[in-house]
Amino acid sequence: MKPTIAVIGGTGAEGSGLALRWARAGYPVVIGSRSAEKAATVSASLGERLPPGSAPLTGATNAEAAQAADVVVLSVPYSAQEATLQQIGDACQGKILITVGVPLKPPRVSVVWHPPAGSAAQEAQAQLGEGVRVVAAFQNIAADHLQDLSWEPDCDVLVVGDDKAARQQALELVRAAGLFGVDAGPLANAGVVEGLTALLIGINIRYKVKGSGIRITGIPREG
Amino acid sequence: MKPTIAVIGGTGAEGSGLALRWARAGYPVVIGSRSAEKAATVSASLGERLPPGSAPLTGATNAEAAQAADVVVLSVPYSAQEATLQQIGDACQGKILITVGVPLKPPRVSVVWHPPAGSAAQEAQAQLGEGVRVVAAFQNIAADHLQDLSWEPDCDVLVVGDDKAARQQALELVRAAGLFGVDAGPLANAGVVEGLTALLIGINIRYKVKGSGIRITGIPREG
Repeated sequence: MKPTIAVIGGTGAEGSGLALRWARAGYPVVIGSRSAEKAATVSASLGERLPPGSAPLTGATNAEAAQAADVVVLSVPYSAQEATLQQIGDACQGKILITVGVPLKPPRVSVVWHPPAGSAAQEAQAQLGEGVRVVAAFQNIAADHLQDLSWEPDCDVLVVGDDKAARQQALELVRAAGLFGVDAGPLANAGVVEGLTALLIGINIRYKVKGSGIRITGIPREG
Repeated sequence: MKPTIAVIGGTGAEGSGLALRWARAGYPVVIGSRSAEKAATVSASLGERLPPGSAPLTGATNAEAAQAADVVVLSVPYSAQEATLQQIGDACQGKILITVGVPLKPPRVSVVWHPPAGSAAQEAQAQLGEGVRVVAAFQNIAADHLQDLSWEPDCDVLVVGDDKAARQQALELVRAAGLFGVDAGPLANAGVVEGLTALLIGINIRYKVKGSGIRITGIPREG
């Protein structure tokens, strides 16, 4: 029995790409949104893109989605992170929360900016307390790539978090999403993982490409 | 006429690897050390490893090396950075200074740690003033790889700095060293470039490899 995944903010481009990939891999997914109606509409429309045999992809309010899930994925803009966690914090206790967001400071989104705690993921951990095992992952994958189920991934997913078992479970979900994950250590390293996204945005601009990414070299790569 | 490069701290593993590569590419290199005698011994021994037609590789004190050079490369442990820059600061005015070092906090060298200014490179810029154009590069390349002139590089060099022309010149030196450089934007991004090294050290340990690195995907790659 595969765990149920809530994708909070799953109506956005990044979150819905992840939701699609996990449902395809057989993980029941509940997309969360501030509006239950929007969640229902988006999940129905995403469901039409899924191949036969996929797990159910449904919609709910953010709080209901978090409640229903074994693993909670937070995919909201950084500006909405604190308020969203306030809504779902209780429902996350005892669970793994995976943050995929990146704190960026418009208009200079290609310049690294860290919140006072060092990273959005560390802020989430401080807000939620030790009852929630926070992991950061997927920060460096372009939403367009996640949405395109036929994309052949050339970039890796760095996974950081203080609990090793939680990192392992997140790495399993990276594989399920069709991507290659790399265990990049404790949550104190999240600022680098998040900050890399600003570098990649700048590289996209400077090299006139979409969706540059990173790959870790010199390690064994399965399949 | 190729510019002369001073490699301050060039008797170390990282610095001497770079010195070898630039001399091989035809750039006159002066290795700097606190001891003129050590600089002379090391440069003579490195010279024996160079193919015919290489540029001269000589040794001097740090201050003399910086004085003699067009481009100054700082390759000293972070703990020696401030004192070394005090010795060579005057000689660096009007020049490009490339920092290759990484601030690490032993014993937890696989956990990202930033100095108060955000990065060693930003600290160097603050100490040297606006008369020196500071660029950070080569942080993520293992010294063993730099030393091995037959190594086929699979990892990239991220180059950051506030002056675009200085970044361009550093990218030229990356190419001359036989590596692929990527323009990663302003010096404010140096903390991510330096911090990546801590992630890679942890990855080396966790995946039981030496010299993991990073590669930027999705951009055009010459040759």
